[in-house]
Amino acid sequence: MRVLGIDPGLRNLGWGVIDADGGRLRHVANGTLHSEAGDLAPRLLTLHRALWDVLERFAPGTAAVEQTFVNKDAVATLKLGQARAIALLVPAQFGLEVGEYAPNKVKKTVVGVGHADKRQIEHMVKMQLPGVTLDSPDAADALAIAICHAHHIRAPQARIRA
Amino acid sequence: MRVLGIDPGLRNLGWGVIDADGGRLRHVANGTLHSEAGDLAPRLLTLHRALWDVLERFAPGTAAVEQTFVNKDAVATLKLGQARAIALLVPAQFGLEVGEYAPNKVKKTVVGVGHADKRQIEHMVKMQLPGVTLDSPDAADALAIAICHAHHIRAPQARIRA
Repeated sequence: MRVLGIDPGLRNLGWGVIDADGGRLRHVANGTLHSEAGDLAPRLLTLHRALWDVLERFAPGTAAVEQTFVNKDAVATLKLGQARAIALLVPAQFGLEVGEYAPNKVKKTVVGVGHADKRQIEHMVKMQLPGVTLDSPDAADALAIAICHAHHIRAPQARIRA
Repeated sequence: MRVLGIDPGLRNLGWGVIDADGGRLRHVANGTLHSEAGDLAPRLLTLHRALWDVLERFAPGTAAVEQTFVNKDAVATLKLGQARAIALLVPAQFGLEVGEYAPNKVKKTVVGVGHADKRQIEHMVKMQLPGVTLDSPDAADALAIAICHAHHIRAPQARIRA
């Protein structure tokens, strides 16, 4: 099963694709989509087109997006919500179910603890996907989300036990 | 010029289409798109498809969306941001520029004061679009946004003076 992970953001949207064959994971590709500051509608259009290209190019069978961390900065929350809508919409337009995982769930699955920092996540992503070159911290997060989703679709009961 | 106004919301998304010929306005259509509670990705897909149909059917030449009122409820802000992304994306996919107006700006343009309530807005929308039947309060707001946009594209200097 080919898995797409997406770490949503309006300025930098990370994506990562892996192949999951039982417990074996293989890196396929990762990258970062950008939209320049300016009017919101063209920014969302840019992200939509670029993410559409990723789906067309790599044809994943399932996708997952990180659940948004709602913080105290309402303007930042709103921007993230708008970027996240694109991250959820495009896989749905390709007929995929889209998993959603809280950041702590991703960390717990990939690193083993819920409060891991970015360096630990990058380290574990590199361990589990030997030879990977990470395009950006957002792309690393996206691969972590893909790894988390691969584990949960392989062992759905883990979701209940968690 | 045919103008589409959109009042974004995840559960109820209001839309309204008017024809603006100089200072003369004519109602074309208005309605409300719904998405049922559940996973976010299919909800966004539902709204995207339905709004796409509105654009295909009525072929507006320009569009406008209400700027989001950022409130203290972060979860509500996030939901609104996600619905708003669809409202901005679809007209941009049709090659339209998308105007954005603060709620007070819409009220001031349509009613004359920035603190008008919903009943005043509905009253003025009915006055300016004789014979209109309003599908819902959200559709009334969407028509008010379209009226506001029609005024500002006709007299762009008003935007500077405002």
